Amino acid sequence: MNDKQVMVKMVFDRWYALLKNCDTLLNSLTDEQLLREIAPGKNRGIYLLGHLIAVHDDMLPILGLGDKQHAELFEMFLKSPDSKSTEGIPSVGELRSHWSKQNVMLKEKFDGLTADDWFGKHNSVSAEDFIKEPHRNKLNIILTRTTHLAYHHGQLMLIKQ
Amino acid sequence: MNDKQVMVKMVFDRWYALLKNCDTLLNSLTDEQLLREIAPGKNRGIYLLGHLIAVHDDMLPILGLGDKQHAELFEMFLKSPDSKSTEGIPSVGELRSHWSKQNVMLKEKFDGLTADDWFGKHNSVSAEDFIKEPHRNKLNIILTRTTHLAYHHGQLMLIKQ
Repeated sequence: MNDKQVMVKMVFDRWYALLKNCDTLLNSLTDEQLLREIAPGKNRGIYLLGHLIAVHDDMLPILGLGDKQHAELFEMFLKSPDSKSTEGIPSVGELRSHWSKQNVMLKEKFDGLTADDWFGKHNSVSAEDFIKEPHRNKLNIILTRTTHLAYHHGQLMLIKQ
Repeated sequence: MNDKQVMVKMVFDRWYALLKNCDTLLNSLTDEQLLREIAPGKNRGIYLLGHLIAVHDDMLPILGLGDKQHAELFEMFLKSPDSKSTEGIPSVGELRSHWSKQNVMLKEKFDGLTADDWFGKHNSVSAEDFIKEPHRNKLNIILTRTTHLAYHHGQLMLIKQ
């Protein structure tokens, strides 16, 4: 492995380990539990699940890997706070399905990129800025979403009895 | 910047951004708030603060940067669950002080390493295994502690009203 391949492995090892931990957690929680707040007055599990799907979906255009698959979730789970209602949002079952399919789809797309590709620029940085700031590469998108995932995984864990 | 320097910057940008977020949060919380549970029946803020200090302290020997500074915290905040008592553990004020001093000290030590050093092996992997698994380098310790920090930061945030 060259240096870039080592670094890509380091970041994706974290990404996939956290996704697996979230999967295990989600599979251990009932739909009813995911409708509960993680703490009194705070976001519900369903909101955090929708939020993670929306944030991960948004990586597709940023990484140049296609259009968003769930553009409607962006407004519900990213732009708006938790409504604490089941009206106007997908059911827990639908979100579970989106989550599973998204993880398969993202892995397929990610596997198509080489280590050099991951150190190339993403679509939220200009070519000019990228020359001065080469750390703003595609792999950094995965890295920032990995810490974002860890943040909300820590919160989702609190639903577990 | 060469490839390794870019990678080191990517990981440390995350590490320091999260430490700063935690600092901002801790400064906004009173000692009394940090004695509260993050959610009913879950860990208290003081426990998570002690836990983070103990885990970060443990990086020193792993990275070959010296002995632990707070070996006594390991048993209290890592090996033992939250006792929900203020007996037998440092006060919130003492932990705040440990946290601030630790962050200054760790930064000084980290700044002394080159990008090549960060891609060298740490002390929890054998030389033999490291040849086969070069991703088990010092930088990976920072990366895994960064996601660990994000996980608990997400929980500590819940104390905030």
